[in-house]
Amino acid sequence: MRISELSDLSGVSAASIKYYTREGLLPAGERTGYNSTDYTDAHVDRLRLIRALIDTGGLSVNATREVLAAIDDPELPLDEVLGTAQQAVPHTDAPPTEATLGALRTLMRAQGWATLPENPGIPVAAAALREFQALAPDELDDWLGAYARAADIIAEADVDFVLSVEARGRVAERVVVGTALGDVLLAGLRRIAQESLTHRRFRGGVVPSDRPEPQ
Amino acid sequence: MRISELSDLSGVSAASIKYYTREGLLPAGERTGYNSTDYTDAHVDRLRLIRALIDTGGLSVNATREVLAAIDDPELPLDEVLGTAQQAVPHTDAPPTEATLGALRTLMRAQGWATLPENPGIPVAAAALREFQALAPDELDDWLGAYARAADIIAEADVDFVLSVEARGRVAERVVVGTALGDVLLAGLRRIAQESLTHRRFRGGVVPSDRPEPQ
Repeated sequence: MRISELSDLSGVSAASIKYYTREGLLPAGERTGYNSTDYTDAHVDRLRLIRALIDTGGLSVNATREVLAAIDDPELPLDEVLGTAQQAVPHTDAPPTEATLGALRTLMRAQGWATLPENPGIPVAAAALREFQALAPDELDDWLGAYARAADIIAEADVDFVLSVEARGRVAERVVVGTALGDVLLAGLRRIAQESLTHRRFRGGVVPSDRPEPQ
Repeated sequence: MRISELSDLSGVSAASIKYYTREGLLPAGERTGYNSTDYTDAHVDRLRLIRALIDTGGLSVNATREVLAAIDDPELPLDEVLGTAQQAVPHTDAPPTEATLGALRTLMRAQGWATLPENPGIPVAAAALREFQALAPDELDDWLGAYARAADIIAEADVDFVLSVEARGRVAERVVVGTALGDVLLAGLRRIAQESLTHRRFRGGVVPSDRPEPQ
């Protein structure tokens, strides 16, 4: 197909398609003449993935290039694909305090969690936990335990989801998308569940839908 | 205390303290002389909250100003504090496709979730879900159900956490911190649980800790 059709099918402008090609995110189309280039369905799929990672996952163009290269490299072991994806999503480089790390290690022991010391989730979880500790130092156990149970449920589902395909390129793609967009999905569902639960507890389950809908 | 002590205690530079004051994030200290200003413990707490929202929560300075104003306004109803916080965290304005909305509505019915149509979680969850549907249209049910169960566990814990204090300013603070940093905490715990589960399934629970630790 020509670039105009690729643009229509993907909803991405021709200028952006050219930009992603220059930046090494999208493979070039096949030159078929002086001023025409041929694109395939694989380009449509790749553009959709690029936009999802950037617009929804919040990845930078550089981070997107790296995770796409990890998907496309058939030699890269899958745990390195996961590592690349985990580094690409917004993360923190701030070293955690000892008090926060201690609380996190206690939680990890209680959950039976064991990871390498460089797991990128540790500084991320510690940075957030620090603020909750400051707010409510003596009453975090139940709440934190609920978050840990939820994380276990999700991790189990994630691993099943990734391993239910066999082709290596498909597995890598699921690892990257799951890492970058799973957090976003969960953040959205959490807001839906929060509001729903608030109605249930405080208004007997009645959603105040008599409020006018937004235009 | 003087600004130098506030800087030491909070770990925030004097220049940043002045910047946050100019930007309306931090109340001004009390002028006690020609060239001296007095700060209190409340300034230390507020600086810690500002840095957590910006550095860990990823909020912009403008969004941080808005949520702090919501915490400080004793007249603002709590559901509007929650709305302000939900709009302040990174979210999407892209309208979801009908197919994705349909799948999300099916899930919401199955979970017994009911919200106003403008719940900000709906476009966020739909944007992420769309990409998973493209990857694996026929095998999402179990995986998505696990995410929904996890979201319910977390929402329940969130509401308990927020309502276990009585002072209105404290409740508002928990609403904002919980919204902005709960997603981050969960993202971190998810990575820890993912790695741990991967070791358990594929290496009989042995963490490959004979790899050299990073410096």
